[in-house]
Amino acid sequence: MVHASKKRNTGCPVAFALDAFGDRWTLLIIRDMLWRGAKTYGEFMESPEGYATNILADRLKMLEAEDIVTRREDPANRRRKIYRLTDKGLELLPMLVEMLLWSARYDPNTVVTGQMLKFVREDREGFMAQMRRRAMGKE
Amino acid sequence: MVHASKKRNTGCPVAFALDAFGDRWTLLIIRDMLWRGAKTYGEFMESPEGYATNILADRLKMLEAEDIVTRREDPANRRRKIYRLTDKGLELLPMLVEMLLWSARYDPNTVVTGQMLKFVREDREGFMAQMRRRAMGKE
Repeated sequence: MVHASKKRNTGCPVAFALDAFGDRWTLLIIRDMLWRGAKTYGEFMESPEGYATNILADRLKMLEAEDIVTRREDPANRRRKIYRLTDKGLELLPMLVEMLLWSARYDPNTVVTGQMLKFVREDREGFMAQMRRRAMGKE
Repeated sequence: MVHASKKRNTGCPVAFALDAFGDRWTLLIIRDMLWRGAKTYGEFMESPEGYATNILADRLKMLEAEDIVTRREDPANRRRKIYRLTDKGLELLPMLVEMLLWSARYDPNTVVTGQMLKFVREDREGFMAQMRRRAMGKE
């Protein structure tokens, strides 16, 4: 993810995607929203990767500028913000699923269980539907 | 992509994948190998993104360390090196295809034509087979 002025605009789909979310932290934030249903600073901070708060704030702002996440006030606590994936953000899920399958194959320390792999392979749509519900706070 | 000591080893598949290739330049290099069949410095340098030579050299070395690319001498010119994707590298193709589909949808400047999209959607395996042949220098 880069500032608009640094974008390449070559029209290449890989370059476009990397301009939008091509940053380690950005993709981990999107993962937290899909896998864990994280939606607040406090919930993002529970990640095992340990975000620095300034990085988290910066990347959330970039994702909002890219229309990948939305930010709104928590009705129960106006000082708290709630972040949710947009449709554009949710549509990154198939790419993340491919990333999961690749890593499950090559990471000797993978946390992906055989049972989860079986679910993804045999019912990918069902798996993605579950992630989407989680990301939308419906589960 | 980070040095071994900086890897997180949390077992999370997204984190593992980002440690292996989570860098703008790295994925563009892999793209060049798949889409254009690029295999030498000279061919990588033809990319519209304009790699700096030190970045290109650094990322190729990292990809080699990750066993995503191999390097060998060109039999026709011992001073020239030929880079090819390993199986581990070729298996990133499904993820790149998802990236392509996402960007084709959201990039107003996309170079992805309707005809290419139709090919990918109707015969994804055929499209990927073509990319693999290109990356292996068989086309």
